[in-house]
Amino acid sequence: MNFKLTIEYDGTAYHGWQRQKNARTIQETIESAISVMVKVPVRLIGSGRTDAGVHALGQAANFRCEKDLPPEAFVAGLNSLLPDDIVIRGCEKVPDEFHAQYDAKLKTYCYRILNRPIPSAICRQYAWFIPRPLDVDAMDQAARHVIGTHDFSSFEATGSPRSHSQRTVHSARVIKKADDIICFEITANGFLRFMVRNIVGTLADVGIGKIRPDGFKTIIAARNRDQASATAPAHGLFLVCVRYADAAAVPFSR
Amino acid sequence: MNFKLTIEYDGTAYHGWQRQKNARTIQETIESAISVMVKVPVRLIGSGRTDAGVHALGQAANFRCEKDLPPEAFVAGLNSLLPDDIVIRGCEKVPDEFHAQYDAKLKTYCYRILNRPIPSAICRQYAWFIPRPLDVDAMDQAARHVIGTHDFSSFEATGSPRSHSQRTVHSARVIKKADDIICFEITANGFLRFMVRNIVGTLADVGIGKIRPDGFKTIIAARNRDQASATAPAHGLFLVCVRYADAAAVPFSR
Repeated sequence: MNFKLTIEYDGTAYHGWQRQKNARTIQETIESAISVMVKVPVRLIGSGRTDAGVHALGQAANFRCEKDLPPEAFVAGLNSLLPDDIVIRGCEKVPDEFHAQYDAKLKTYCYRILNRPIPSAICRQYAWFIPRPLDVDAMDQAARHVIGTHDFSSFEATGSPRSHSQRTVHSARVIKKADDIICFEITANGFLRFMVRNIVGTLADVGIGKIRPDGFKTIIAARNRDQASATAPAHGLFLVCVRYADAAAVPFSR
Repeated sequence: MNFKLTIEYDGTAYHGWQRQKNARTIQETIESAISVMVKVPVRLIGSGRTDAGVHALGQAANFRCEKDLPPEAFVAGLNSLLPDDIVIRGCEKVPDEFHAQYDAKLKTYCYRILNRPIPSAICRQYAWFIPRPLDVDAMDQAARHVIGTHDFSSFEATGSPRSHSQRTVHSARVIKKADDIICFEITANGFLRFMVRNIVGTLADVGIGKIRPDGFKTIIAARNRDQASATAPAHGLFLVCVRYADAAAVPFSR
Protein backbone atom coordinates (compact mmCIF):
# COMPACT_ATOMS: atom_id res chain seq x y z
CA MET A 1 0.00 0.00 0.00
CA ASN A 2 1.08 3.58 -0.60
CA PHE A 3 -0.50 6.36 1.45
CA LYS A 4 -0.30 10.09 0.97
CA LEU A 5 -0.59 12.38 3.98
CA THR A 6 -1.46 16.06 4.08
CA ILE A 7 0.17 17.57 7.15
CA GLU A 8 -0.11 20.81 9.10
CA TYR A 9 2.62 21.66 11.57
CA ASP A 10 3.89 24.38 13.80
CA GLY A 11 7.62 24.28 13.13
CA THR A 12 8.57 26.25 16.24
CA ALA A 13 9.72 23.30 18.31
CA TYR A 14 11.38 21.31 15.51
CA HIS A 15 14.68 21.28 13.70
CA GLY A 16 12.89 21.27 10.39
CA TRP A 17 11.36 18.46 8.39
CA GLN A 18 14.25 16.13 7.73
CA ARG A 19 15.37 13.36 10.05
CA GLN A 20 18.60 14.21 11.87
CA LYS A 21 20.74 12.71 14.55
CA ASN A 22 20.20 14.23 17.99
CA ALA A 23 17.51 16.67 16.87
CA ARG A 24 13.73 16.48 16.91
CA THR A 25 12.28 16.74 13.43
CA ILE A 26 8.83 16.56 11.87
CA GLN A 27 9.66 13.64 9.60
CA GLU A 28 11.02 11.50 12.40
CA THR A 29 8.10 12.33 14.71
CA ILE A 30 5.53 11.26 12.12
CA GLU A 31 7.53 8.19 11.10
CA SER A 32 7.56 7.06 14.73
CA ALA A 33 3.81 7.50 15.03
CA ILE A 34 3.15 5.55 11.82
CA SER A 35 5.50 2.79 13.00
CA VAL A 36 3.52 2.50 16.23
CA MET A 37 0.38 1.97 14.16
CA VAL A 38 1.74 -0.48 11.61
CA LYS A 39 4.25 -2.22 13.97
CA VAL A 40 7.17 -1.95 11.58
CA PRO A 41 9.62 0.83 10.78
CA VAL A 42 8.32 3.12 8.03
CA ARG A 43 10.05 5.62 5.79
CA LEU A 44 8.12 8.84 5.17
CA ILE A 45 8.92 10.70 1.95
CA GLY A 46 8.16 14.41 2.13
CA SER A 47 7.49 16.68 -0.86
CA GLY A 48 10.63 18.46 0.24
CA ARG A 49 12.38 19.70 3.36
CA THR A 50 11.29 22.66 5.35
CA ASP A 51 13.93 24.40 7.44
CA ALA A 52 13.97 24.70 11.22
CA GLY A 53 11.14 26.95 12.40
CA VAL A 54 9.22 26.89 9.11
CA HIS A 55 5.53 25.95 9.37
CA ALA A 56 3.21 24.02 7.07
CA LEU A 57 -0.51 24.12 6.47
CA GLY A 58 -0.39 21.46 3.79
CA GLN A 59 2.90 19.60 3.54
CA ALA A 60 2.53 16.38 1.54
CA ALA A 61 4.30 13.09 2.17
CA ASN A 62 3.87 9.41 1.36
CA PHE A 63 4.78 6.12 2.97
CA ARG A 64 4.52 2.52 1.90
CA CYS A 65 3.39 -0.26 4.20
CA GLU A 66 1.91 -3.75 4.06
CA LYS A 67 -1.00 -2.93 6.28
CA ASP A 68 -4.18 -2.14 4.36
CA LEU A 69 -5.86 0.22 6.81
CA PRO A 70 -8.55 2.64 5.70
CA PRO A 71 -7.01 6.10 5.21
CA GLU A 72 -9.36 7.61 7.83
CA ALA A 73 -7.84 5.23 10.38
CA PHE A 74 -4.44 6.81 9.76
CA VAL A 75 -5.89 10.30 10.21
CA ALA A 76 -7.54 9.44 13.51
CA GLY A 77 -4.79 7.14 14.77
CA LEU A 78 -1.86 9.39 13.92
CA ASN A 79 -3.56 12.49 15.33
CA SER A 80 -4.06 10.67 18.60
CA LEU A 81 -0.40 9.63 18.68
CA LEU A 82 1.20 12.86 17.46
CA PRO A 83 1.95 15.92 19.61
CA ASP A 84 -0.59 18.66 18.98
CA ASP A 85 1.79 20.82 16.96
CA ILE A 86 1.64 18.24 14.16
CA VAL A 87 -1.76 17.45 12.63
CA ILE A 88 -2.62 15.00 9.86
CA ARG A 89 -5.25 16.83 7.80
CA GLY A 90 -5.87 14.07 5.34
CA CYS A 91 -4.80 10.65 4.14
CA GLU A 92 -5.50 8.92 0.86
CA LYS A 93 -4.41 5.77 -0.90
CA VAL A 94 -2.23 6.54 -3.91
CA PRO A 95 -0.78 4.37 -6.67
CA ASP A 96 2.32 2.36 -5.73
CA GLU A 97 4.57 4.53 -7.86
CA PHE A 98 3.47 7.81 -6.30
CA HIS A 99 6.45 9.68 -4.82
CA ALA A 100 5.71 12.84 -2.80
CA GLN A 101 8.97 14.49 -3.77
CA TYR A 102 9.47 13.51 -7.41
CA ASP A 103 5.83 13.84 -8.40
CA ALA A 104 5.21 17.27 -6.87
CA LYS A 105 4.10 19.63 -9.64
CA LEU A 106 3.49 22.89 -7.80
CA LYS A 107 4.12 24.22 -4.34
CA THR A 108 2.62 27.28 -2.73
CA TYR A 109 4.27 29.13 0.11
CA CYS A 110 3.16 32.17 2.00
CA TYR A 111 5.33 34.41 4.09
CA ARG A 112 3.83 36.63 6.77
CA ILE A 113 5.27 39.96 7.90
CA LEU A 114 3.94 41.85 10.89
CA ASN A 115 4.34 45.53 10.00
CA ARG A 116 3.62 47.85 12.89
CA PRO A 117 5.74 49.78 15.38
CA ILE A 118 5.42 47.26 18.21
CA PRO A 119 5.88 43.47 18.06
CA SER A 120 3.06 41.02 18.75
CA ALA A 121 2.83 38.48 21.55
CA ILE A 122 0.31 36.34 19.67
CA CYS A 123 2.03 36.33 16.25
CA ARG A 124 5.60 36.20 17.51
CA GLN A 125 6.19 32.71 16.13
CA TYR A 126 4.13 33.14 12.96
CA ALA A 127 5.28 36.39 11.35
CA TRP A 128 8.45 38.39 10.79
CA PHE A 129 8.24 41.61 12.77
CA ILE A 130 9.32 44.68 10.77
CA PRO A 131 8.65 47.98 12.57
CA ARG A 132 9.49 50.33 9.66
CA PRO A 133 6.45 51.07 7.48
CA LEU A 134 6.56 49.03 4.29
CA ASP A 135 5.29 50.13 0.89
CA VAL A 136 3.09 47.16 0.01
CA ASP A 137 2.38 48.35 -3.55
CA ALA A 138 6.08 48.63 -4.32
CA MET A 139 6.68 45.18 -2.84
CA ASP A 140 3.86 43.75 -4.94
CA GLN A 141 5.29 45.33 -8.10
CA ALA A 142 8.68 43.85 -7.31
CA ALA A 143 7.17 40.44 -6.57
CA ARG A 144 5.65 40.31 -10.08
CA HIS A 145 9.16 40.24 -11.55
CA VAL A 146 9.80 36.76 -10.19
CA ILE A 147 6.88 35.34 -12.20
CA GLY A 148 8.05 33.22 -15.13
CA THR A 149 10.96 30.90 -15.76
CA HIS A 150 14.21 32.29 -14.41
CA ASP A 151 17.55 31.22 -13.08
CA PHE A 152 17.07 32.06 -9.41
CA SER A 153 20.74 31.76 -8.35
CA SER A 154 20.50 35.24 -6.82
CA PHE A 155 17.99 33.90 -4.33
CA GLU A 156 19.63 30.55 -3.71
CA ALA A 157 21.43 29.70 -0.49
CA THR A 158 25.16 29.92 -1.08
CA GLY A 159 26.91 26.60 -1.37
CA SER A 160 23.84 24.70 -2.51
CA PRO A 161 24.92 21.68 -4.57
CA ARG A 162 22.39 21.76 -7.37
CA SER A 163 22.64 21.00 -11.08
CA HIS A 164 20.66 23.99 -12.20
CA SER A 165 18.87 26.86 -10.55
CA GLN A 166 16.04 27.40 -12.99
CA ARG A 167 12.51 27.38 -11.63
CA THR A 168 9.13 28.46 -12.99
CA VAL A 169 7.08 30.77 -10.80
CA HIS A 170 3.38 30.71 -11.69
CA SER A 171 2.15 33.41 -9.37
CA ALA A 172 3.63 35.79 -6.84
CA ARG A 173 2.04 38.70 -5.05
CA VAL A 174 2.19 40.77 -1.90
CA ILE A 175 -1.06 41.63 -0.19
CA LYS A 176 -2.11 43.49 2.93
CA LYS A 177 -4.16 41.42 5.35
CA ALA A 178 -5.94 42.40 8.54
CA ASP A 179 -4.07 43.10 11.79
CA ASP A 180 -1.00 44.71 10.21
CA ILE A 181 -0.06 41.50 8.43
CA ILE A 182 1.52 41.64 4.99
CA CYS A 183 1.54 38.40 3.09
CA PHE A 184 3.78 37.26 0.23
CA GLU A 185 2.28 34.35 -1.70
CA ILE A 186 4.19 32.40 -4.30
CA THR A 187 3.46 29.31 -6.36
CA ALA A 188 6.19 27.59 -8.39
CA ASN A 189 7.14 24.22 -9.81
CA GLY A 190 9.90 24.04 -7.24
CA PHE A 191 12.01 26.14 -4.95
CA LEU A 192 15.72 26.45 -4.33
CA ARG A 193 17.03 26.35 -0.79
CA PHE A 194 16.12 29.59 1.06
CA MET A 195 14.56 30.92 -2.16
CA VAL A 196 11.35 32.24 -0.60
CA ARG A 197 13.12 33.68 2.42
CA ASN A 198 15.75 35.35 0.23
CA ILE A 199 13.07 36.85 -2.02
CA VAL A 200 11.20 38.12 1.07
CA GLY A 201 14.37 39.62 2.55
CA THR A 202 14.85 41.49 -0.71
CA LEU A 203 11.17 42.49 -0.92
CA ALA A 204 11.51 44.01 2.55
CA ASP A 205 14.30 46.23 1.19
CA VAL A 206 11.90 47.26 -1.58
CA GLY A 207 9.30 47.98 1.09
CA ILE A 208 11.55 50.40 2.94
CA GLY A 209 12.65 52.08 -0.31
CA LYS A 210 16.21 50.76 -0.36
CA ILE A 211 15.63 48.87 -3.61
CA ARG A 212 13.27 50.01 -6.38
CA PRO A 213 10.69 47.49 -7.60
CA ASP A 214 12.49 47.34 -10.98
CA GLY A 215 15.67 46.45 -9.15
CA PHE A 216 14.30 42.93 -8.86
CA LYS A 217 14.86 42.41 -12.60
CA THR A 218 18.51 43.35 -12.27
CA ILE A 219 18.96 41.18 -9.20
CA ILE A 220 17.47 38.13 -10.92
CA ALA A 221 19.54 38.75 -14.07
CA ALA A 222 22.76 38.97 -12.02
CA ARG A 223 22.49 35.31 -10.92
CA ASN A 224 24.58 36.26 -7.94
CA ARG A 225 23.49 35.77 -4.33
CA ASP A 226 25.39 38.90 -3.32
CA GLN A 227 22.95 41.06 -5.26
CA ALA A 228 19.97 40.08 -3.11
CA SER A 229 19.33 41.04 0.50
CA ALA A 230 19.57 39.06 3.73
CA THR A 231 17.52 35.91 4.29
CA ALA A 232 14.20 36.56 6.05
CA PRO A 233 13.72 34.57 9.27
CA ALA A 234 12.19 31.09 9.13
CA HIS A 235 9.21 31.65 11.42
CA GLY A 236 7.24 33.79 8.93
CA LEU A 237 7.21 31.03 6.33
CA PHE A 238 4.35 28.57 5.70
CA LEU A 239 4.26 25.76 3.15
CA VAL A 240 0.63 26.17 2.13
CA CYS A 241 0.06 23.28 -0.27
CA VAL A 242 1.66 20.87 -2.69
CA ARG A 243 -0.10 19.93 -5.89
CA TYR A 244 0.22 16.71 -7.86
CA ALA A 245 -0.96 15.83 -11.33
CA ASP A 246 -3.57 13.32 -10.23
CA ALA A 247 -4.54 14.62 -6.84
CA ALA A 248 -6.91 17.50 -6.41
CA ALA A 249 -5.29 20.47 -4.79
CA VAL A 250 -6.34 21.00 -1.23
CA PRO A 251 -6.83 24.70 -0.88
CA PHE A 252 -5.51 26.26 2.30
CA SER A 253 -5.31 29.96 2.83
CA ARG A 254 -3.93 32.08 5.58
CA MET B 1 3.16 59.93 38.11
CA ASN B 2 0.45 57.59 36.91
CA PHE B 3 1.02 55.57 33.75
CA LYS B 4 -1.44 53.55 31.72
CA LEU B 5 -0.22 50.55 29.75
CA THR B 6 -1.88 48.80 26.84
CA ILE B 7 -0.74 45.19 26.85
CA GLU B 8 -0.87 42.26 24.45
CA TYR B 9 -0.15 38.81 25.79
CA ASP B 10 -0.22 35.18 24.90
CA GLY B 11 -1.77 33.61 27.99
CA THR B 12 -0.64 30.07 27.16
CA ALA B 13 2.28 29.95 29.58
CA TYR B 14 0.66 31.90 32.45
CA HIS B 15 -1.71 31.21 35.30
CA GLY B 16 -3.81 34.18 34.31
CA TRP B 17 -3.42 37.87 35.02
CA GLN B 18 -3.51 38.07 38.76
CA ARG B 19 -0.48 37.71 41.02
CA GLN B 20 -0.42 34.37 42.84
CA LYS B 21 1.90 32.51 45.10
CA ASN B 22 3.95 29.84 43.34
CA ALA B 23 2.52 30.52 39.90
CA ARG B 24 3.72 32.64 37.01
CA THR B 25 1.22 35.37 36.14
CA ILE B 26 1.07 38.28 33.71
CA GLN B 27 0.63 40.92 36.40
CA GLU B 28 3.62 39.77 38.40
CA THR B 29 5.82 39.46 35.31
CA ILE B 30 5.09 43.03 34.24
CA GLU B 31 5.38 44.38 37.78
CA SER B 32 8.85 42.85 38.04
CA ALA B 33 9.91 44.44 34.77
CA ILE B 34 8.62 47.88 35.82
CA SER B 35 10.37 47.51 39.16
CA VAL B 36 13.65 46.83 37.38
CA MET B 37 13.21 50.07 35.46
CA VAL B 38 12.14 52.31 38.33
CA LYS B 39 14.23 50.58 41.05
CA VAL B 40 11.35 50.27 43.52
CA PRO B 41 8.51 47.76 43.87
CA VAL B 42 5.47 48.76 41.82
CA ARG B 43 1.84 47.71 41.97
CA LEU B 44 0.15 47.22 38.60
CA ILE B 45 -3.64 47.62 38.53
CA GLY B 46 -5.28 45.73 35.68
CA SER B 47 -8.69 46.54 34.16
CA GLY B 48 -9.68 43.13 35.45
CA ARG B 49 -8.38 39.61 35.69
CA THR B 50 -8.07 37.24 32.83
CA ASP B 51 -8.11 33.53 33.61
CA ALA B 52 -5.31 31.07 32.99
CA GLY B 53 -4.79 30.56 29.27
CA VAL B 54 -6.82 33.60 28.19
CA HIS B 55 -5.06 36.01 25.79
CA ALA B 56 -5.17 39.77 25.41
CA LEU B 57 -4.64 42.09 22.47
CA GLY B 58 -5.36 45.21 24.48
CA GLN B 59 -5.47 44.67 28.24
CA ALA B 60 -5.21 47.96 30.13
CA ALA B 61 -3.44 48.57 33.42
CA ASN B 62 -1.96 51.46 35.37
CA PHE B 63 0.84 51.95 37.86
CA ARG B 64 2.03 54.87 39.93
CA CYS B 65 5.68 55.73 40.42
CA GLU B 66 7.84 58.68 41.34
CA LYS B 67 10.02 58.42 38.29
CA ASP B 68 8.96 60.82 35.54
CA LEU B 69 10.11 58.86 32.52
CA PRO B 70 8.68 59.58 29.06
CA PRO B 71 5.98 56.99 28.26
CA GLU B 72 7.91 55.81 25.17
CA ALA B 73 10.77 54.87 27.48
CA PHE B 74 8.47 52.45 29.29
CA VAL B 75 7.34 50.91 26.01
CA ALA B 76 10.90 50.35 24.82
CA GLY B 77 12.34 49.47 28.21
CA LEU B 78 9.61 47.05 29.28
CA ASN B 79 9.54 45.31 25.91
CA SER B 80 13.27 44.68 26.20
CA LEU B 81 12.85 43.27 29.71
CA LEU B 82 9.66 41.22 29.19
CA PRO B 83 9.49 37.73 27.70
CA ASP B 84 8.25 37.88 24.13
CA ASP B 85 4.79 36.51 24.98
CA ILE B 86 4.01 39.80 26.74
CA VAL B 87 4.22 43.02 24.71
CA ILE B 88 3.58 46.58 25.84
CA ARG B 89 1.72 48.15 22.92
CA GLY B 90 1.44 51.61 24.38
CA CYS B 91 2.04 53.76 27.44
CA GLU B 92 0.60 57.13 28.32
CA LYS B 93 0.59 59.46 31.29
CA VAL B 94 -2.82 59.62 32.91
CA PRO B 95 -4.26 61.78 35.72
CA ASP B 96 -3.29 60.73 39.23
CA GLU B 97 -6.81 59.51 40.01
CA PHE B 98 -7.04 57.21 36.97
CA HIS B 99 -7.73 53.61 38.02
CA ALA B 100 -7.64 50.95 35.31
CA GLN B 101 -10.24 48.77 37.02
CA TYR B 102 -12.74 51.27 38.45
CA ASP B 103 -12.65 53.65 35.49
CA ALA B 104 -13.12 51.04 32.76
CA LYS B 105 -16.28 51.88 30.80
CA LEU B 106 -16.39 49.19 28.16
CA LYS B 107 -14.57 46.00 27.42
CA THR B 108 -14.52 44.04 24.21
CA TYR B 109 -13.75 40.35 24.05
CA CYS B 110 -13.58 38.03 21.11
CA TYR B 111 -13.77 34.26 21.24
CA ARG B 112 -12.42 32.17 18.39
CA ILE B 113 -13.73 28.75 17.40
CA LEU B 114 -12.00 26.54 14.84
CA ASN B 115 -14.81 24.70 13.08
CA ARG B 116 -13.58 21.99 10.75
CA PRO B 117 -13.24 18.22 10.95
CA ILE B 118 -9.54 18.18 11.87
CA PRO B 119 -7.73 20.26 14.52
CA SER B 120 -5.07 22.81 13.67
CA ALA B 121 -1.41 22.76 14.66
CA ILE B 122 -1.03 26.51 14.18
CA CYS B 123 -4.22 27.63 15.97
CA ARG B 124 -4.18 25.03 18.72
CA GLN B 125 -3.56 27.61 21.44
CA TYR B 126 -5.72 30.36 19.94
CA ALA B 127 -9.08 28.79 19.11
CA TRP B 128 -11.51 26.21 20.50
CA PHE B 129 -11.61 23.24 18.16
CA ILE B 130 -15.16 22.04 17.41
CA PRO B 131 -15.34 19.37 14.69
CA ARG B 132 -19.15 19.26 14.33
CA PRO B 133 -20.40 21.77 11.74
CA LEU B 134 -21.85 24.85 13.45
CA ASP B 135 -24.79 26.91 12.20
CA VAL B 136 -23.25 30.39 12.35
CA ASP B 137 -26.51 32.18 11.52
CA ALA B 138 -28.33 30.48 14.38
CA MET B 139 -25.46 31.32 16.73
CA ASP B 140 -25.54 34.94 15.62
CA GLN B 141 -29.31 35.13 16.19
CA ALA B 142 -28.85 33.70 19.66
CA ALA B 143 -26.00 36.10 20.42
CA ARG B 144 -28.26 39.07 19.72
CA HIS B 145 -30.38 38.11 22.74
CA VAL B 146 -27.60 39.01 25.15
CA ILE B 147 -27.58 42.64 23.94
CA GLY B 148 -29.09 45.01 26.49
CA THR B 149 -29.17 45.19 30.27
CA HIS B 150 -29.76 41.80 31.84
CA ASP B 151 -29.10 39.84 34.96
CA PHE B 152 -26.51 37.40 33.62
CA SER B 153 -26.55 34.96 36.56
CA SER B 154 -27.18 32.11 34.11
CA PHE B 155 -23.75 32.76 32.61
CA GLU B 156 -21.90 33.49 35.85
CA ALA B 157 -19.41 31.09 37.37
CA THR B 158 -21.07 29.30 40.26
CA GLY B 159 -19.98 30.49 43.67
CA SER B 160 -18.97 33.96 42.49
CA PRO B 161 -19.29 36.38 45.41
CA ARG B 162 -20.84 39.40 43.73
CA SER B 163 -23.43 41.92 44.86
CA HIS B 164 -25.38 41.90 41.63
CA SER B 165 -25.11 40.17 38.29
CA GLN B 166 -26.53 42.84 36.03
CA ARG B 167 -24.46 43.98 33.10
CA THR B 168 -25.15 45.96 29.93
CA VAL B 169 -24.07 44.40 26.67
CA HIS B 170 -23.69 46.96 23.88
CA SER B 171 -22.97 44.63 21.01
CA ALA B 172 -22.68 40.91 20.44
CA ARG B 173 -22.38 38.98 17.21
CA VAL B 174 -21.06 35.79 15.70
CA ILE B 175 -19.25 36.02 12.39
CA LYS B 176 -17.48 33.64 10.08
CA LYS B 177 -13.87 34.52 9.39
CA ALA B 178 -11.36 33.00 7.00
CA ASP B 179 -9.69 29.65 7.65
CA ASP B 180 -12.68 27.95 9.31
CA ILE B 181 -12.63 30.41 12.19
CA ILE B 182 -15.89 31.51 13.79
CA CYS B 183 -15.64 34.57 15.98
CA PHE B 184 -17.92 35.73 18.79
CA GLU B 185 -17.44 39.42 19.57
CA ILE B 186 -18.98 41.10 22.58
CA THR B 187 -18.74 44.56 24.13
CA ALA B 188 -20.19 45.32 27.56
CA ASN B 189 -19.74 47.65 30.50
CA GLY B 190 -18.42 44.73 32.47
CA PHE B 191 -18.33 40.95 32.60
CA LEU B 192 -19.07 38.40 35.27
CA ARG B 193 -16.58 35.65 35.94
CA PHE B 194 -16.60 33.11 33.04
CA MET B 195 -19.44 35.09 31.41
CA VAL B 196 -18.01 35.13 27.88
CA ARG B 197 -16.92 31.50 28.06
CA ASN B 198 -20.30 30.39 29.42
CA ILE B 199 -22.11 32.31 26.66
CA VAL B 200 -19.83 30.70 24.07
CA GLY B 201 -20.37 27.22 25.47
CA THR B 202 -24.10 27.81 25.13
CA LEU B 203 -23.75 29.33 21.65
CA ALA B 204 -21.93 26.17 20.58
CA ASP B 205 -25.00 24.17 21.62
CA VAL B 206 -27.07 26.49 19.45
CA GLY B 207 -24.60 25.91 16.63
CA ILE B 208 -25.08 22.13 16.74
CA GLY B 209 -28.88 22.50 17.01
CA LYS B 210 -29.22 21.37 20.62
CA ILE B 211 -30.62 24.74 21.69
CA ARG B 212 -32.75 27.02 19.49
CA PRO B 213 -31.62 30.64 19.10
CA ASP B 214 -34.73 31.78 21.04
CA GLY B 215 -33.70 29.49 23.86
CA PHE B 216 -31.17 32.15 24.86
CA LYS B 217 -34.01 34.39 26.06
CA THR B 218 -35.29 31.65 28.37
CA ILE B 219 -31.81 30.86 29.62
CA ILE B 220 -31.10 34.50 30.50
CA ALA B 221 -34.52 34.90 32.15
CA ALA B 222 -33.93 31.80 34.32
CA ARG B 223 -31.00 33.45 36.14
CA ASN B 224 -29.75 29.97 36.85
CA ARG B 225 -26.33 28.69 35.84
CA ASP B 226 -27.75 25.19 35.36
CA GLN B 227 -29.76 26.40 32.37
CA ALA B 228 -26.69 27.31 30.33
CA SER B 229 -24.16 24.93 28.79
CA ALA B 230 -20.60 24.03 29.77
CA THR B 231 -17.88 26.67 29.96
CA ALA B 232 -15.89 27.03 26.73
CA PRO B 233 -12.12 26.53 27.15
CA ALA B 234 -9.93 29.50 28.03
CA HIS B 235 -7.57 29.40 25.06
CA GLY B 236 -10.15 30.70 22.53
CA LEU B 237 -10.70 33.92 24.47
CA PHE B 238 -9.05 37.28 23.75
CA LEU B 239 -9.52 40.52 25.69
CA VAL B 240 -9.51 42.87 22.68
CA CYS B 241 -9.68 46.32 24.26
CA VAL B 242 -10.75 48.31 27.28
CA ARG B 243 -12.27 51.74 26.84
CA TYR B 244 -12.18 54.64 29.29
CA ALA B 245 -14.12 57.89 29.31
CA ASP B 246 -11.14 60.10 28.58
CA ALA B 247 -8.89 57.85 26.60
CA ALA B 248 -9.43 57.17 22.95
CA ALA B 249 -10.22 53.56 22.29
CA VAL B 250 -7.39 51.68 20.67
CA PRO B 251 -8.99 49.51 18.03
CA PHE B 252 -7.68 46.01 17.74
CA SER B 253 -9.28 43.38 15.63
CA ARG B 254 -8.68 39.72 15.16
